[in-house]
Amino acid sequence: MLEKLGLKRQSEVKEAYKSHKKRDETFHFNTILRLSKKFGAERMSREAAEALSEYLTEEFKRVIQDADKLTRHAGRKTIMPEDIELAIQRKR
Amino acid sequence: MLEKLGLKRQSEVKEAYKSHKKRDETFHFNTILRLSKKFGAERMSREAAEALSEYLTEEFKRVIQDADKLTRHAGRKTIMPEDIELAIQRKR
Repeated sequence: MLEKLGLKRQSEVKEAYKSHKKRDETFHFNTILRLSKKFGAERMSREAAEALSEYLTEEFKRVIQDADKLTRHAGRKTIMPEDIELAIQRKR
Repeated sequence: MLEKLGLKRQSEVKEAYKSHKKRDETFHFNTILRLSKKFGAERMSREAAEALSEYLTEEFKRVIQDADKLTRHAGRKTIMPEDIELAIQRKR
């Protein structure tokens, strides 16, 4: 009984950690909702916000990783606006 | 002198309001920095983060507004994941 309880607790901790990690690697739910309302979309399911967040995160990742390459290619260490702009152009 | 001071104050209030409004309609600086670090880009100028935020906001706006149209087209009021997915496909 105690063991079972312990196991449950451990898996709960694991779940909480995983969801925290996931949350850390995407745009937060509230950010998505705030911007959606700004652009006139009043009602949205949580799953829809998650789908949108995942898509944006993918876009973000593609652009930032290309910009990072371009920055090092230019002999710099800090990403500048021109790196972002070129990365966006290259993506299209 | 007092008038001048008053004028300055008023314009400062205006500026603060404008920047708050702008901040409200984009992804926040800290969100961009947090995700950049997650994806391996350690250093980034503020202007670069702003350029990236603007690009993502544009993408966001395009997808959410199309999803909103698709939602109403399907006779619903709440955006569902399938609306987001179709909007992303249509954009490509």
